[in-house]
Amino acid sequence: MFSRLSIGLWSLDASGYWNNTGEGTVKKLEAAAKIKVLRGVELIYPTHVNEENLTAVKDACRRLSLEVVSVNPNVWADPIFARGAFTSRSAAARKKAVEYGKTAFDFAKELGAGRMCLWPGQDGFDYPFQDDYSALWDLSLEGIGEVARYAKGHKIGIEYKFHEPRGQSLLDSASTVLLLSRMLGLDNVGINLDFGHALLSKENPGESVVKCMREGKLFGVHVNDNYGATDEDMTLASIHHVAPLEFFYYLNKTGYDGWISLDIAPRREDPISACELSFRNLARLEKAVERLDIARLKEAQASSDSLLAQEIVNCAIFGA
Amino acid sequence: MFSRLSIGLWSLDASGYWNNTGEGTVKKLEAAAKIKVLRGVELIYPTHVNEENLTAVKDACRRLSLEVVSVNPNVWADPIFARGAFTSRSAAARKKAVEYGKTAFDFAKELGAGRMCLWPGQDGFDYPFQDDYSALWDLSLEGIGEVARYAKGHKIGIEYKFHEPRGQSLLDSASTVLLLSRMLGLDNVGINLDFGHALLSKENPGESVVKCMREGKLFGVHVNDNYGATDEDMTLASIHHVAPLEFFYYLNKTGYDGWISLDIAPRREDPISACELSFRNLARLEKAVERLDIARLKEAQASSDSLLAQEIVNCAIFGA
Amino acid sequence: MFSRLSIGLWSLDASGYWNNTGEGTVKKLEAAAKIKVLRGVELIYPTHVNEENLTAVKDACRRLSLEVVSVNPNVWADPIFARGAFTSRSAAARKKAVEYGKTAFDFAKELGAGRMCLWPGQDGFDYPFQDDYSALWDLSLEGIGEVARYAKGHKIGIEYKFHEPRGQSLLDSASTVLLLSRMLGLDNVGINLDFGHALLSKENPGESVVKCMREGKLFGVHVNDNYGATDEDMTLASIHHVAPLEFFYYLNKTGYDGWISLDIAPRREDPISACELSFRNLARLEKAVERLDIARLKEAQASSDSLLAQEIVNCAIFGA
Amino acid sequence: MFSRLSIGLWSLDASGYWNNTGEGTVKKLEAAAKIKVLRGVELIYPTHVNEENLTAVKDACRRLSLEVVSVNPNVWADPIFARGAFTSRSAAARKKAVEYGKTAFDFAKELGAGRMCLWPGQDGFDYPFQDDYSALWDLSLEGIGEVARYAKGHKIGIEYKFHEPRGQSLLDSASTVLLLSRMLGLDNVGINLDFGHALLSKENPGESVVKCMREGKLFGVHVNDNYGATDEDMTLASIHHVAPLEFFYYLNKTGYDGWISLDIAPRREDPISACELSFRNLARLEKAVERLDIARLKEAQASSDSLLAQEIVNCAIFGA
Repeated sequence: MFSRLSIGLWSLDASGYWNNTGEGTVKKLEAAAKIKVLRGVELIYPTHVNEENLTAVKDACRRLSLEVVSVNPNVWADPIFARGAFTSRSAAARKKAVEYGKTAFDFAKELGAGRMCLWPGQDGFDYPFQDDYSALWDLSLEGIGEVARYAKGHKIGIEYKFHEPRGQSLLDSASTVLLLSRMLGLDNVGINLDFGHALLSKENPGESVVKCMREGKLFGVHVNDNYGATDEDMTLASIHHVAPLEFFYYLNKTGYDGWISLDIAPRREDPISACELSFRNLARLEKAVERLDIARLKEAQASSDSLLAQEIVNCAIFGA
Repeated sequence: MFSRLSIGLWSLDASGYWNNTGEGTVKKLEAAAKIKVLRGVELIYPTHVNEENLTAVKDACRRLSLEVVSVNPNVWADPIFARGAFTSRSAAARKKAVEYGKTAFDFAKELGAGRMCLWPGQDGFDYPFQDDYSALWDLSLEGIGEVARYAKGHKIGIEYKFHEPRGQSLLDSASTVLLLSRMLGLDNVGINLDFGHALLSKENPGESVVKCMREGKLFGVHVNDNYGATDEDMTLASIHHVAPLEFFYYLNKTGYDGWISLDIAPRREDPISACELSFRNLARLEKAVERLDIARLKEAQASSDSLLAQEIVNCAIFGA
Repeated sequence: MFSRLSIGLWSLDASGYWNNTGEGTVKKLEAAAKIKVLRGVELIYPTHVNEENLTAVKDACRRLSLEVVSVNPNVWADPIFARGAFTSRSAAARKKAVEYGKTAFDFAKELGAGRMCLWPGQDGFDYPFQDDYSALWDLSLEGIGEVARYAKGHKIGIEYKFHEPRGQSLLDSASTVLLLSRMLGLDNVGINLDFGHALLSKENPGESVVKCMREGKLFGVHVNDNYGATDEDMTLASIHHVAPLEFFYYLNKTGYDGWISLDIAPRREDPISACELSFRNLARLEKAVERLDIARLKEAQASSDSLLAQEIVNCAIFGA
Repeated sequence: MFSRLSIGLWSLDASGYWNNTGEGTVKKLEAAAKIKVLRGVELIYPTHVNEENLTAVKDACRRLSLEVVSVNPNVWADPIFARGAFTSRSAAARKKAVEYGKTAFDFAKELGAGRMCLWPGQDGFDYPFQDDYSALWDLSLEGIGEVARYAKGHKIGIEYKFHEPRGQSLLDSASTVLLLSRMLGLDNVGINLDFGHALLSKENPGESVVKCMREGKLFGVHVNDNYGATDEDMTLASIHHVAPLEFFYYLNKTGYDGWISLDIAPRREDPISACELSFRNLARLEKAVERLDIARLKEAQASSDSLLAQEIVNCAIFGA
């Protein structure tokens, strides 16, 4: 069903998200290439790819037959972004965030990537009254708008997240980003939908797919799992089963033809094995989607018949 | 600071939300009128006001000097709405929902009310796969759009809610309703912002005020409190203090000049006393807003200085 | 695997929990008897069985080959319990709660039931400072202790619940009830473990089984499902799959030989169909438990190998 | 009201919890000593105090008039504890955890500290089926028991936490630790109650105080604040007001005479200023406790009168 399978290269950094350095990128790519179903990778600028290693990374990807799916600007890790990136009250921080966004686009062109996953992780607040929300909105629109206008035609999928690392993020849900996109009036600002982030935002992830696709704004997909309160980035289908089934069902039904990218953070496990397990679980979910009795499901949905729908769904999950 | 103070008349039904009948409306209005600061009431059609008691209700309001703030269509209690109102797969249910919406507008004109609080409480789903989300969106846009076009010029404040009575609501957050409003392209479709619902949706309620006001779509406000997981509709400022302080701060700062309406459900307490306590707490919060050192707060916010902001805020709350 | 299957008779009241009356008990039993796998029922005193209908209920159960699993005292619905039952500050309310508990035991003897599910739903508080917690604990120990000493030898499974109908319950988790049991020093005070309540209390329900069984205090089990925030009492395995799998795995592994009782509240569905679906899902989960590769699972657990454990688990769920 | 005020020295590490090294301990103590109300510090072994710097730390504390409140074994940061400390399946890890516990006690004697805060942060699990819960319980009882028997007479306050860094902790609530203490039958195993952890476990922190004090097991207190979902360790009284008010009210009422220790993690703020603000807020809360009309509060609680209780409470918070 889905053949454009990729990982965020950060998923391979078993010792934690924040310790990534660009130095090991080629080695990580070589490790990733051992994952049989893998066809692409998402890279972070300047964490994984940067001015120093661009050629080496490009060569390695070609040699390993890995497509570069996206180049994503790291607008969170540098201490300059501690109180915000696009929304920082420091002009220097905002300038750097915009530059990172523009450079990520430049690198994407160089590497043949068609989109950017933009996670404005530091744009939000920790404490009540800490900031003026209207100012945050103005600055967010301004900064993201500037990047998007520079990268005209390049799909910018904003990855919303309810919280973490800030106490509360400004762009906290699918609806908020779709609203922002309409405010900006820019076709190339859409959503990179992270399954686990949808759970954190108390969304039904399948419904979020539909909402994004109706707006023509689903530019990328990250998959993983969590318990619903914090973003553990666990292996896919480790905690939830019917929620990812519905997610993939709607991706298929609505004609999403982009990449499905793993975004996991195995802290106590071998990351390659964790990716392989996640892809095996994806294959299991795809088979379960295929086992859904679509004719009867339509019948169930035509009268909101939850019992019939559940029977069909559990037949598909359990195989009988 | 706020003088347009009202209650949802349902707040007086101590035996629970669902047992309201229109029969006792005049008695409830008389009881409500004893609340000294009260200037208005929100009424539900046909629960509180209907074809039978319209004149009596109108007379009582005039006699008691109570303005009718809104007439809100009850699109949730009738069993016909069990699987949705505007989004039901039953054409009869949808028709009834639209009719209720239109009639509520007619009654509002009759009673001099300038707006409607529209809570589509049954529009959502309980179980995964129970319904087709795209169909739900189409039907929601169609039904709400029809009411809004009929009630041209009349402010329709949609009250979003994350869940309850359904497992998940379609219109689940401030952003979702603002997005819906842009989809509809209708000026008179906005938000009735319920403080407790904002908490359930994991929003910062002050930020929600700002977001709505920036879109010019804050049509009404309900206040109450809860623990964050379920909509207990508790007395104002019983659980949270800094969150409602920030909420009222931003209502004032952004120039909101509409009604502040109590929406509480005292189950084990005398409802009149519970309303009076809530209004006393509102007065306490207003005084605390006035105690905020605005000049220093601006200074704090200009650099996202959370420690300074907190010092100012706790001085204002505790009075020193 | 599990053959002692029952339902709480309240699961058949499609119009909601609170409207049950004893009048329709025989009809409900006749409806329940159509559920093929069903062998027992839990009854509430005086809601389902009482002084008026005891003989009729007894005869019906015999005629329909339904064992009475438990008689559970309704210490929540009478308005006298509005501010607590065993912990009410009203001596009359406390007396009534204890009497209900004792009478439920008397009826159990009459009906051949070996245990009681005791849900002290009103024992808790809504607002901070509303009550003195030490007094609540004293009264809870006193009242439950009196019932337990009266019903010596009769298993009293306390059903803890985090919240609802009160803002917070006193007996809010498995650990709290096990602690209470040790405080009382009474062998017959244990737990009726409700799967959905364990989710609400943020427990891993399988771990709760183990904790209760280690203390020798697992007296009964209720199954259902929910989203984790409110007690929707949904059909089993509608939302979660791996959590109930692990729950049944540990019930089996630890040698639980009591009843498995459905406790669901289908509000918009036919309740008999909802029970049948839940039992079909139970059978699916039992088969999945049987598909677990136990030898490899032990190997995985011997080194906390989460990836191997997940592979085994998803093979068992999806059938491959 | 409370004069034994301390901080966990880790609160001063503005760059994050995990980067602490023992090297800077004296400098941190000197910084801490500038906080006027401060009388004590909690130290972590071997993070802050260890075989190399014991004399230097001891001298610095004497010179700066800082009492050492506790020495807490770091059974979480060493990679050997990645899959558990006391509950690890690796005998070497368990041995190291026990040794750390014993050595922390030895250091406490040397430094004149009367207790230990023991946070078994890695003892739990991430994924369902990853471990055998009965084995986890056996190992937890064994390891903690061994430390407690070695440190006879020394108060070991276990700091429970619902989750983080593991997906779920074994010792997840006040009730669970009190149950463990009864299982062990050791007088010196009790609770170090962290206000924020009580929030994470969905407890009413005041009720947790009462529960611990009734068992005679409240050995230490950590204060901070959070939003309820993750352990942000924010400044005290930044998010919640009535909850910490009730917490301090019950600490006072039940006669707690131990230390009140700040456990905060200012990531984007100056840590000394954040501590000072927290202590100012503590003083504000103490004054509010003193403003409570105790006579009327008793009257309110004698009939669970929530409205009267709230009036008293908000008078005390707002000062009128």
